[in-house]
Amino acid sequence: MGPGPVNADPRVLRAMSAQLIGQYDPAMTAYMNETMELYRGVFRTSNAATLLVDGTSRAGIEAAIVSLVAPGDRVLVPIFGRFGHLLAEIAGRAGAEVHTREIEWGGVFTSAAIEQAIVEVKPALLAVVHGDTSTTVAQPLDELGEICERHGVLFYTDVTASLGGNAFEMDAWGLDAATAGLQKCLGGPSGSSPISLSPKAVARIEARKSVEAGIRAEGDAVRDDPIRSNYFDLAMILDYWGEKRLNHHTEATSMLYGARECARLLVEEGMDAAIERHRLHGAAMAQGVAALGLRIFGDRAHRMNNVVGVFIPDGVDGDRVRTALLEDFAIEIGTSFGPLHGKIWRIGTMGFNARKDAVLTTLAALEQVLRAEGHRLTAGAGVGAARDVYAEAVA
Amino acid sequence: MGPGPVNADPRVLRAMSAQLIGQYDPAMTAYMNETMELYRGVFRTSNAATLLVDGTSRAGIEAAIVSLVAPGDRVLVPIFGRFGHLLAEIAGRAGAEVHTREIEWGGVFTSAAIEQAIVEVKPALLAVVHGDTSTTVAQPLDELGEICERHGVLFYTDVTASLGGNAFEMDAWGLDAATAGLQKCLGGPSGSSPISLSPKAVARIEARKSVEAGIRAEGDAVRDDPIRSNYFDLAMILDYWGEKRLNHHTEATSMLYGARECARLLVEEGMDAAIERHRLHGAAMAQGVAALGLRIFGDRAHRMNNVVGVFIPDGVDGDRVRTALLEDFAIEIGTSFGPLHGKIWRIGTMGFNARKDAVLTTLAALEQVLRAEGHRLTAGAGVGAARDVYAEAVA
Repeated sequence: MGPGPVNADPRVLRAMSAQLIGQYDPAMTAYMNETMELYRGVFRTSNAATLLVDGTSRAGIEAAIVSLVAPGDRVLVPIFGRFGHLLAEIAGRAGAEVHTREIEWGGVFTSAAIEQAIVEVKPALLAVVHGDTSTTVAQPLDELGEICERHGVLFYTDVTASLGGNAFEMDAWGLDAATAGLQKCLGGPSGSSPISLSPKAVARIEARKSVEAGIRAEGDAVRDDPIRSNYFDLAMILDYWGEKRLNHHTEATSMLYGARECARLLVEEGMDAAIERHRLHGAAMAQGVAALGLRIFGDRAHRMNNVVGVFIPDGVDGDRVRTALLEDFAIEIGTSFGPLHGKIWRIGTMGFNARKDAVLTTLAALEQVLRAEGHRLTAGAGVGAARDVYAEAVA
Repeated sequence: MGPGPVNADPRVLRAMSAQLIGQYDPAMTAYMNETMELYRGVFRTSNAATLLVDGTSRAGIEAAIVSLVAPGDRVLVPIFGRFGHLLAEIAGRAGAEVHTREIEWGGVFTSAAIEQAIVEVKPALLAVVHGDTSTTVAQPLDELGEICERHGVLFYTDVTASLGGNAFEMDAWGLDAATAGLQKCLGGPSGSSPISLSPKAVARIEARKSVEAGIRAEGDAVRDDPIRSNYFDLAMILDYWGEKRLNHHTEATSMLYGARECARLLVEEGMDAAIERHRLHGAAMAQGVAALGLRIFGDRAHRMNNVVGVFIPDGVDGDRVRTALLEDFAIEIGTSFGPLHGKIWRIGTMGFNARKDAVLTTLAALEQVLRAEGHRLTAGAGVGAARDVYAEAVA
């Protein structure tokens, strides 16, 4: 019940245990095409360029940035948590001229503040995290696409922590690039990064294309200043996933099976239903911990559905509570990074763990552990408050 | 029965279907430590820095090169197949001054030729493929470590295609870095890249270390010219796998389970026994195809145990044969790249498929398909010749 990775859905694990097939087997390429179509549903997009990057969510981020950003390009990163720092870090290593804006962890930027920064910086790319698990809040993105469009800026977000558990509309919000991971609300293991690119983003990437020597054919593009990474060169990866089936990496077959099943689960459930499920169990958890006398962290209006930050109360040893939960109840919760390390716990309700029994069991165990720490609470209050949330939802 | 990926060992697939655990769960970190130790056995090394890169084998290559090579460093790449071009390509994108030497596909370099090139180029790094599946031959490496040592050159090889099926001695041969993948002789799916680094390589990488802003603590290294990739920054990845457990990517749990099981299989069997198994089944396949009247490609003295290249005979449609094998017999074989595309087939006997029944079934099916193509052959000759190899091994 931490901020992720969390337990995978058993259907995903079963899918991953299927025997391998060759990378150009028609069954395999059909799975790849199906996976692209399924993720269009998950991202809510009609982007043809919707595919997997073979690595963890951080691999998807680096692929998007290193492919979109040429050395010297200006990139604007509004930072409201640990993963904003990561986007800035990755853009810097890609050779970008990085400009950041920072606010205190726990809050989000206004659209006006971001537009103001765009006017000041005139970036080629706006790179912003959607939900930052380090602070448990999600940056509203719905007004930023129009702003980026007006200023001629490409608009990229990482939705690893939020996708599937919180509203996200790739096309309606005007995103040019989005990257994700399986290990949060998608109910899978880390190791595959779904990614989607708008036609405008694809055009930018295709203009930088340079086909590697080992497989280059006559007429193929060659440039002196190729994308700085071969593994993350989305121009070549698009040719591997596209009609050309041009050899690049060897697609990670088992992870593809898993990523496909994650998307099938969400699409079968319906994206709206999945988001409502995360809202419900997240609300039950939040009400439950509050009723145990714990104070919730962060801007409540922008809290993510799938993770709640909780201040560690005075006189309670945060690490000892986490260890007791893990060792005595086999339940994992997290702490956070940087300014929040040791100050808050992060409790997740996402993917396969966005379930009533998981929420109530966690609250029951947490009550026992907090009591042993000498924290004052009303017996049964946590589970009771969560039950009230569920009762209301049924009524 | 292609050049890989091939069928995974069922034990690996079962291991991958285990439920996930948190990345800092003591059980998980214990698995990580176990996996490091197992791969020391597979690489035949005492290198502490033996771990997984989360991506396909190409990710391991890029991680090694981008971490070892600073922009402007000279890198020497002897090219004898498609994957030599890949090493040169990746080094070029990492900003290296790349020098190549090329020979015709199918042969290998003499140690003297490589030493001569080292004297001419004075590289910081020698990067050479061990077994290049595109040509089915393996470059002898046993004399190159001493040469590199003498000239002050770091020595890196990619053993994706060869490891586990051909002799490889990381320490005895004086390697500073080696990278691999699971999808060949290791019997797993692609998506995780085992890698090992000598203390000298680690020192080079540590000297380039720069800890990212989101997790930086006082006293941590910060540099203006960090390693050009965050995802492939082995200095940070070493801190994630090491005592510090400094957050970097989220380890791909299911792939770790799979990679660990691949190494357990090999270590239980014994590396020498695994290599002998690949030699035996590879010899049976080679004798079998020769007895079907097919001519074997490449320098026979340096042929890899686990894949054999076969000239497509005149008058036979290579793609039609591959399609018939796949559709009528569910057996996949490969063709090759570049100058060999459409000229040879590549038939693998590796990992879980280095088995007598797999070899005999493939030869029986190939006989039927070749007969339908009008290729002249002696009925039963292929299976018979393979049987002779097995009988000799028992005798």
